[in-house]
Amino acid sequence: MAEPLFDRLALIGIGLIGSSLAQVARREGLVREIAISTRSEKTLERARELGLGDVYTLDPAEAVADADLVVLCIPVGACEATMQTIADSLKPGAILTDVGSVKMSVIDQIAPHVPDTVHFIPGHPIAGTEHSGPDAGFPDLFQNRWCILTPDKSTSRDAIDRLTAFWRGCGSDVDTMEPGRHDLVLAITSHLPQLISYNIVGTADDLETVTKSEVIKYSAGGFRDFTRLAASDPTMWRDVCLHNKDAILEMLARFSEDLSAMQRAIRWGDAGALFDLFSRTRSIRKSIIEAGQETPAPDFGRPHKKGRD
Amino acid sequence: MAEPLFDRLALIGIGLIGSSLAQVARREGLVREIAISTRSEKTLERARELGLGDVYTLDPAEAVADADLVVLCIPVGACEATMQTIADSLKPGAILTDVGSVKMSVIDQIAPHVPDTVHFIPGHPIAGTEHSGPDAGFPDLFQNRWCILTPDKSTSRDAIDRLTAFWRGCGSDVDTMEPGRHDLVLAITSHLPQLISYNIVGTADDLETVTKSEVIKYSAGGFRDFTRLAASDPTMWRDVCLHNKDAILEMLARFSEDLSAMQRAIRWGDAGALFDLFSRTRSIRKSIIEAGQETPAPDFGRPHKKGRD
Ligand SMILES: NC(=O)c1ccc[n+]([C@@H]2O[C@H](COP(=O)([O-])OP(=O)(O)OC[C@H]3O[C@@H](n4cnc5c(N)ncnc54)[C@H](OP(=O)(O)O)[C@@H]3O)[C@@H](O)[C@H]2O)c1
Ligand SMILES: NC(=O)c1ccc[n+]([C@@H]2O[C@H](COP(=O)([O-])OP(=O)(O)OC[C@H]3O[C@@H](n4cnc5c(N)ncnc54)[C@H](OP(=O)(O)O)[C@@H]3O)[C@@H](O)[C@H]2O)c1
Repeated sequence: MAEPLFDRLALIGIGLIGSSLAQVARREGLVREIAISTRSEKTLERARELGLGDVYTLDPAEAVADADLVVLCIPVGACEATMQTIADSLKPGAILTDVGSVKMSVIDQIAPHVPDTVHFIPGHPIAGTEHSGPDAGFPDLFQNRWCILTPDKSTSRDAIDRLTAFWRGCGSDVDTMEPGRHDLVLAITSHLPQLISYNIVGTADDLETVTKSEVIKYSAGGFRDFTRLAASDPTMWRDVCLHNKDAILEMLARFSEDLSAMQRAIRWGDAGALFDLFSRTRSIRKSIIEAGQETPAPDFGRPHKKGRD
Repeated sequence: MAEPLFDRLALIGIGLIGSSLAQVARREGLVREIAISTRSEKTLERARELGLGDVYTLDPAEAVADADLVVLCIPVGACEATMQTIADSLKPGAILTDVGSVKMSVIDQIAPHVPDTVHFIPGHPIAGTEHSGPDAGFPDLFQNRWCILTPDKSTSRDAIDRLTAFWRGCGSDVDTMEPGRHDLVLAITSHLPQLISYNIVGTADDLETVTKSEVIKYSAGGFRDFTRLAASDPTMWRDVCLHNKDAILEMLARFSEDLSAMQRAIRWGDAGALFDLFSRTRSIRKSIIEAGQETPAPDFGRPHKKGRD
């Protein structure tokens, strides 16, 4: 195993993302020591039982004190308050990053409090599951996924390179991007799909003409696909909506406009328009599979064996 | 192996569903002989290469001639023309069924042409993948899935029981339902999710502010889930839209109404409303998993191993 890239990694927040980072950093020998801090006794205790780190504390300032890499793994809306707590304890020369699903707002919350001696590089791994908490983490979560960093022009090249090496060590490819562009791109590739999933599951739940038990029994017709994203953590997604409002509203407007056109085509029985729309959407999946971002197995490779699903 | 339930099974259409039926019927010894008919030389040849049946013909009337179970496995919009071709060749006492995703329209197309001596029982297995054609079929497709039959009051009990036994032999549970109710229930559990998937992929494809390569690279943020359904056969789904128009438009209207409410909550930063909506959608997935209609594995059990996805 190569030399560790960092001496002490501090993870502030130890849910799905924090726990996965702890496990891969340990397995790949990316850091010498891991300090873990989280808000609640209960989660901290669970992290300890899982053996995710070396040092455990409820005080984030204590966790970051000697750390040369600090990763905030908390909801987007919690960044400012947490930053205020840790700002004075950050070690000179340390790299401070985060994993939040929104970047402009996180920068607004954090940047004003960052000491001159600390390198702040916002980040976002495009990897996740619908589960939360320390038990949901696993070391291969970031494997073959992209991690986006949004440094500004003044950020030290050396610090960016070291953080890039860390994410590569986690199995990811790394891109850099302007934070505003990140928020726009993720609004279509992540936030809109998430909201549409919540919405369709909500619609089904509210119907008075079809019972919940019918929806459940016949969900393999397609509906069940949407319930995966709609089972994601409500706090995380509330915060994403509140903190990436403009880009999300723009994508929702586009989606609604297109949906109205489809509705019209169905109402008027416009077979040609429907066929065209349903044909041109195929190639994107093919490209996603070729890019290694999706499994080629039919039905996501869901089990279809006798007695197994 | 038990006695076969039927002597000769005729499959009219040998795509995903027909091919899967051929394979499971053969493996489970449900029928003595399988006759296959399809529209094109090419598909028929492929079915022969795959060894899916015993008799192959381009003439559906020839395939049904001696069959005591006939299953139409063709797009919903093709039922009337095919029925006109086979009506005079159906064997007295035979059971005629189909697998179409819509039931009212299929009944309107078929029922007027059914000879008095033939038992017509419309059907729909709630099982599928995004792939089409004979190569996409596999014998476990129907395992643990529901099959809905929509017989009318005059249908022979014995015929219903025999068709039920056939679907059970394929691994499915069987429900009976009124055709109108089927079309309403499937509009929410299958047709709406399908159309929403096509729509969101179409929206992403059309954006001039985000490039296609960005959509592809960062699709693991959620978008890729929708591309699966949106890769389904355009002919099949065009026909479903044209033939279940009213129920689909009703569900689209409900969905749009709910989406507007969500849009408003985001615009006005209504954190409580967003949190509530995002919380109540979790339990449906749990119920679907408990009902055996979904895998409990995170992320549909997609591979996350090093170098494997
Ligand atoms: N889940 C995904 O798919 C995904 C993917 C990419 C990026 N992200 C981003 O990663 C971050 C964490 O997500 P996650 O999925 O790991 O979440 P998670 O599993 O729910 O864990 C959240 C962690 O943040 C802590 N926390 C929650 N609210 C807090 C608050 N108000 N102040 C301080 N700490 C708080 C929790 O502490 P306690 O348990 O001790 O209360 C827990 O340690 C989010 O910013 C999210 O946008 C998530
Ligand atoms: N796919 C699913 O997930 C799913 C699930 C449940 C029910 N269904 C229903 O099952 C039926 C078949 O779907 P599938 O997925 O098996 O389709 P598929 O794989 O595309 O196969 C379609 C079959 O129908 C034939 N066909 C197509 N157009 C025809 C026409 N105008 N006249 C006569 N034959 C025609 C094709 O013949 P050639 O190849 O020779 O042209 C082929 O044999 C549809 O009614 C669909 O609603 C589908």
